[in-house]
Amino acid sequence: MSEFDLIRRYFTRPASGAVLGVGDDAALLHVAGGMELAVSTDMLVSGTHFFPDADPFLLGHKTLAVNLSDLAAMGAVPRWATLALSLPDADDGWLQRFSDGFFALADEYGVELVGGDTTRGPLNLSVTIMGEVPQGMALRRSGARAGDDVWVSGALGRAALGLAHLQGRIDLAGDVRSRCLAALHRPQPRVDLGLALRGIANSAIDISDGLLADLGHIAESSHVAAEVEYAAIPADALRGVDESLLRHCVLSGGDDYELCFTVPAAKRGEVETLAAKLSLPLARIGAIAAGQGCTVRSTDGSVMTTKEAGYDHFA
Amino acid sequence: MSEFDLIRRYFTRPASGAVLGVGDDAALLHVAGGMELAVSTDMLVSGTHFFPDADPFLLGHKTLAVNLSDLAAMGAVPRWATLALSLPDADDGWLQRFSDGFFALADEYGVELVGGDTTRGPLNLSVTIMGEVPQGMALRRSGARAGDDVWVSGALGRAALGLAHLQGRIDLAGDVRSRCLAALHRPQPRVDLGLALRGIANSAIDISDGLLADLGHIAESSHVAAEVEYAAIPADALRGVDESLLRHCVLSGGDDYELCFTVPAAKRGEVETLAAKLSLPLARIGAIAAGQGCTVRSTDGSVMTTKEAGYDHFA
Repeated sequence: MSEFDLIRRYFTRPASGAVLGVGDDAALLHVAGGMELAVSTDMLVSGTHFFPDADPFLLGHKTLAVNLSDLAAMGAVPRWATLALSLPDADDGWLQRFSDGFFALADEYGVELVGGDTTRGPLNLSVTIMGEVPQGMALRRSGARAGDDVWVSGALGRAALGLAHLQGRIDLAGDVRSRCLAALHRPQPRVDLGLALRGIANSAIDISDGLLADLGHIAESSHVAAEVEYAAIPADALRGVDESLLRHCVLSGGDDYELCFTVPAAKRGEVETLAAKLSLPLARIGAIAAGQGCTVRSTDGSVMTTKEAGYDHFA
Repeated sequence: MSEFDLIRRYFTRPASGAVLGVGDDAALLHVAGGMELAVSTDMLVSGTHFFPDADPFLLGHKTLAVNLSDLAAMGAVPRWATLALSLPDADDGWLQRFSDGFFALADEYGVELVGGDTTRGPLNLSVTIMGEVPQGMALRRSGARAGDDVWVSGALGRAALGLAHLQGRIDLAGDVRSRCLAALHRPQPRVDLGLALRGIANSAIDISDGLLADLGHIAESSHVAAEVEYAAIPADALRGVDESLLRHCVLSGGDDYELCFTVPAAKRGEVETLAAKLSLPLARIGAIAAGQGCTVRSTDGSVMTTKEAGYDHFA
């Protein structure tokens, strides 16, 4: 199978939403009038982000999901993606399942693959995703204001717990295991939530490095302080799991791909309505105040010692 | 040095041409009215595209250059780029020189780095470049017509010869060695040529996989035949180099990043004027006719046996 056959067979689909899709030196896209283009890139590396023997279907899903999550956090409608992949060899079965996983999620959100690159090398998957958002309406990290509530979607810590389970550090069972492994392998980007938060949230970020680190980015960019109540953070009730490991997973595990966002307290009702409309749990976990930094308080009101920053590839 | 320090120190520059640059979940870009967005991605992998000990300044240059070359082939004005990189470790000296090389070329063409991703793993560099082209004016592979002349810019085969020299397969010296190594390490994307060809050329492609393969793409996409005279292809005169190796480098070596384009014979004068204006050699090497495929003829008119396809990562 040649490189061109490979691209033709697995990665060339009609792109009716593009002026020109896969097959030329560049794709050509038309960004609608009044819209800004939102662009984000994420790279997944074998051995760093996933096990070398990861299920290729789930890997195709996750490769796109982590990028969709970035657009969700901006309140942008996902439209187009490019995929650059480095492969140790051209394995038909692997490519079929990987592309099936990628396109299944792409189809769900109307994303078109419009270009890419295929090369030989250690397994590496790099997606650039592009979407549209009405001018001036994007959700930024820098918009949080004192008096905002801090919210998160879904439950936190699951992906990190799932990883700990696979690494043999803890032993999960039953529903919790299923949920944690699903969160790790098949994260659901909160695209609909991001779109619905336009005009409601003052700021938003997706939780990829862990709540503490990512809410810390909001605090830093917005020049405010974030205070979170640990007990208010939605997480699975787990027995027999070391408390400090659990806390690490919930606060700093990362790979959650839930949204963390801030909304003026006056709009609490709108967020609650949204949660019902989207059938997605949205939890109010804290508040924004004047100051700086990100603080977590335990049930008795004391500040928890959390030296844990988010996941850092080079720390 | 943390991942965020690394991004801040080496890859965060003001992006005055973007609504929002590095530092949020996505960049925000405004594509001007009447313009299409041209998007292309290229991934460079250590050991496949470059030696692991490659000079990081030159690598920074080349990483962006090969992407600029794609936009050149579309006739698009380069505007923005994202950079995803996987690094074995965070080496200050390497990062400084890599980013210097990247930004030196970016500044030359007014390209702004608006986003990216940094992770740990085998050295891998993936750029997505975005540019603007007036609606309907992009140069495509599919526009070649019978009666067009086939042109190429610069000289072909140099990068492949430079690589053969570094691999000890041939021994280059003097000016030829300098030119071949410069072509390999520091390719000059033909952006100005691509822009000037809008309204003149019927089709264009950048020569990354080798003339035969890339002109073959034009022929296939345009449903025409391309005929090239070997003697008309601009290449360095080399003594003592095996003729079949030389032919391979010129026809199929790839990594040239020159433009191959087709222009109606009636517009020959316009192309010659362009060559003078841009101080860039442009050579007429053949013609487009009805039919299919890409044929090369030797001086005596016979069809050269050239089984050589272009570089293929998986053939």
